[in-house]
Amino acid sequence: MRRTRFDDWPCPIARATDLIGDWWTPLVMREFFYGRRRFDEIAESLQVPRAVLTARLGRLVEEGMLTRVAYQERPVRYEYRLTEKGHAFGDVLLAMWRWAADWQWPDGEGPEVALKDRESGEYVQPVVVDEHTGRKVTMRTVRMARARPRPA
Amino acid sequence: MRRTRFDDWPCPIARATDLIGDWWTPLVMREFFYGRRRFDEIAESLQVPRAVLTARLGRLVEEGMLTRVAYQERPVRYEYRLTEKGHAFGDVLLAMWRWAADWQWPDGEGPEVALKDRESGEYVQPVVVDEHTGRKVTMRTVRMARARPRPA
Repeated sequence: MRRTRFDDWPCPIARATDLIGDWWTPLVMREFFYGRRRFDEIAESLQVPRAVLTARLGRLVEEGMLTRVAYQERPVRYEYRLTEKGHAFGDVLLAMWRWAADWQWPDGEGPEVALKDRESGEYVQPVVVDEHTGRKVTMRTVRMARARPRPA
Repeated sequence: MRRTRFDDWPCPIARATDLIGDWWTPLVMREFFYGRRRFDEIAESLQVPRAVLTARLGRLVEEGMLTRVAYQERPVRYEYRLTEKGHAFGDVLLAMWRWAADWQWPDGEGPEVALKDRESGEYVQPVVVDEHTGRKVTMRTVRMARARPRPA
């Protein structure tokens, strides 16, 4: 079935949806943040069909979120590494984590896993704020406006 | 085609993926934040096939993100409203917005739309921080750990 593409829509949410809406893709990205880099590791960890994983990794390379790097000669073997763009996508995964941890378990229950800061060891609760003011942002505190003119 | 379901996985990212991975769903949610509430308004705004929109709204009601409310008698007409859970999902949309605005346009270009604070009128740049410390969180600053034991 042909799907409507959102990758040239003027809305950033639409362009992100075009990528995230590929079933499995957020989970494939998650694997890299857990330190996995190789096809077989990820296929094993997610139990994702190999053809699907091949397609998803291919698109993520095409989108510039991963690079494919030979880590061994004879036979050549490849692994995938996060680019800066791929790393930045972690914010979306963190927001997904928080929302689902809060809402996608039955009342009084929650995930058995949590996030801790690597340095302090303290639990971390991701939340979205404005970069400049540090104030909580929600879809109710903002409105859409014309972007700032860009420097020529 | 039957898809692998992620809605009972132990990882919050997986449970969020199960919902977001329904093609169109983040865009349908976006519409409510823009103030649209009625089937015809959303169908018109997104140009989404009506059968798809029916299915997506149905699932969002089932998930408790929207409620269906009669706003008129004879003939009865319904609209949809965000629940607290649906409103909380805005954080995921804000993170998607920021990432795509930064990365899904060609170099030197960007979206023509931006977010402004409704009160101050200042531009807003959503970013993910830890709720308690206010410090930037990335997938590199955190690790997975066992959750805190819950009160009985």
